[in-house]
Amino acid sequence: MTPLTAGNTRVKEARKLSRRSVRTERRLFLADGPKAVEGALEAPDRVVEVFATPAGAEQYAGLLAAVDVTLVDERALASLSEAVSPAGVVAVCRMFDQAFDDLADANGPIVICDEIRDPGNAGTILRTADAAGAHGVIFTSDSVDPYNPKAVRASVGSLFHVPFAVDPDPAATVRGLQEAGWVVLAADGGGELDLFTADDVLRQRVAWLFGNEARGLPDELLELADHRVRIPIYGRAESLNLATAAALCLYASAKVHRK
Amino acid sequence: MTPLTAGNTRVKEARKLSRRSVRTERRLFLADGPKAVEGALEAPDRVVEVFATPAGAEQYAGLLAAVDVTLVDERALASLSEAVSPAGVVAVCRMFDQAFDDLADANGPIVICDEIRDPGNAGTILRTADAAGAHGVIFTSDSVDPYNPKAVRASVGSLFHVPFAVDPDPAATVRGLQEAGWVVLAADGGGELDLFTADDVLRQRVAWLFGNEARGLPDELLELADHRVRIPIYGRAESLNLATAAALCLYASAKVHRK
Repeated sequence: MTPLTAGNTRVKEARKLSRRSVRTERRLFLADGPKAVEGALEAPDRVVEVFATPAGAEQYAGLLAAVDVTLVDERALASLSEAVSPAGVVAVCRMFDQAFDDLADANGPIVICDEIRDPGNAGTILRTADAAGAHGVIFTSDSVDPYNPKAVRASVGSLFHVPFAVDPDPAATVRGLQEAGWVVLAADGGGELDLFTADDVLRQRVAWLFGNEARGLPDELLELADHRVRIPIYGRAESLNLATAAALCLYASAKVHRK
Repeated sequence: MTPLTAGNTRVKEARKLSRRSVRTERRLFLADGPKAVEGALEAPDRVVEVFATPAGAEQYAGLLAAVDVTLVDERALASLSEAVSPAGVVAVCRMFDQAFDDLADANGPIVICDEIRDPGNAGTILRTADAAGAHGVIFTSDSVDPYNPKAVRASVGSLFHVPFAVDPDPAATVRGLQEAGWVVLAADGGGELDLFTADDVLRQRVAWLFGNEARGLPDELLELADHRVRIPIYGRAESLNLATAAALCLYASAKVHRK
C-alpha cells in the first residue's frame, strides 16, 4: 500500500482533532507517539485508527502487531503531531472520561484541577496522580482540555491509566465530594496547615484541589475547602510550579496512607 | 525620547543573546518579564541595560524607579522576548554563575543536573531548589544552559537567588563533592534505596544527582554515586517527570534537616 499523503481526506480529518472544538464535537482525540499509543491500545475499543510511517510501523511492529495500521508518509505524520521530532505513530482515539459519580466511590486520593491553563501541567498532574496511586483526576469546567495533544503527551501514557472526569462545575464538585465523605484540601501558599505536619488530616479520605498557575484558587473554592494547605518554603522562592506542588501534596498523602 | 525600534543596533545586539554561543562569548543574558528583572535588580551591578515599552515602564514604575530605562516599541520588545504575551520589560544582565569551589562549603543540599535538555526543567529545578532551601545547583557540561531565556523564565526569579555553577565535568564534580564530605545520591527509578525510608541517609550532607529526561543517568555516574534512590511508584506510571522527581527528592531531604 502506498503511504497516504498529508492531503488525504482521512489524514486531514484526523488533523482537525488538534482543535478542542472538533475534539469535543466528535468525542475523538489524538494519541501521539509510542507511549500514548501503547496506553490507548490497552483498551483496543478506544482506538479508531492508527497512523504510522513505514519506518514507525517497522520500529513499533511489536506494539502494532494486533492492529490495522494506516501507512502515511513522513509529512502526513508530522501534520498529526505537535512533537518537534514526531515518533512515527499516532492513533485516533475515542474519549473515555468518566462522569463525576464514578469517582465518588474511589478510595485513594482524588485530584481536582480548577482553571489550570497549561496542557503540559494537566498531563504532568495525570502522570503524577498515576504514580502516587490517586484514584482519579477531575478537570473542572474552566480547565484546559486533558485531551489536548500536549497534555496527552506530557501524561506519558497515564491519561489511559487514571480515571478522569471533564467539565463539572468546580463548587458542585467540591460539595459533592464533601457530601460523599471526602475531606477537600485546597493547595494554597497562604494555607493554615503545613503539608509536612498535617498527617492527621492526610490520613482521612482526601481530595486535593489545585488552582490556576498564576492566580491560584478563587476565594469561593478556598472557603469551601475543608482545609487550606501550604507547602513550606525554606528559601526565597515565592511559590512552587503547579505540577511540582501537586507532586508534593499527592505524595505526602499517599505516604501517610501507605504506612 | 522616541522608543527604539526593532531595527535599532542596541536592540539587535540584545536580541542575539537568545543564542547560547553569543551568551557564552559575551557573558551576557536576557532576563524577561517583571519577576526576572526584579531578581536581576537585587544586585544592580548585574544589570547592563533595561528595555521597556512605554506601557511596561509605566506598569512597573516602582520596580524600575532606580534604574535608567531604554524605551522600545512593542515590536522591539517582542523581539527580545520568547513569551507569547511579552510583559513589556527585559533586562540585559551579566552572568554570575560561580565556580564549583564556592559550592563545596555550602551546608544545605546541593543539586547536580547532568545532561538535562529541557530549559523549562532547568528553570523549574532552580525554583524548587530555592524553595527547598538548597545551597546550590550545578549544571554539568552536558546540560542545557540555565541562562537560556526559557530557563530564566521558568525559574521565576530563583536563578538570581540560588548559587549555581555551569559547565564542570560531571564525574569530577561528583568526586569533588565526595572528597569534601558530601554523600551523593543519584535519583534513579531502579535505585536500591526507597526515598521514603531513607531518612538516615538523607540526614547527612547530601548532593542530589539528576540525569537526562529520557535516558536518566549514565552508568558511570550511577556507580560513582554513594546511593541510588528511587521514588516509589504506587500506580502504573513508569516514571515521574524530572522536575517533579527533583521536587520530591529535594523536599524529602530538606524535611529531614528541618526537623
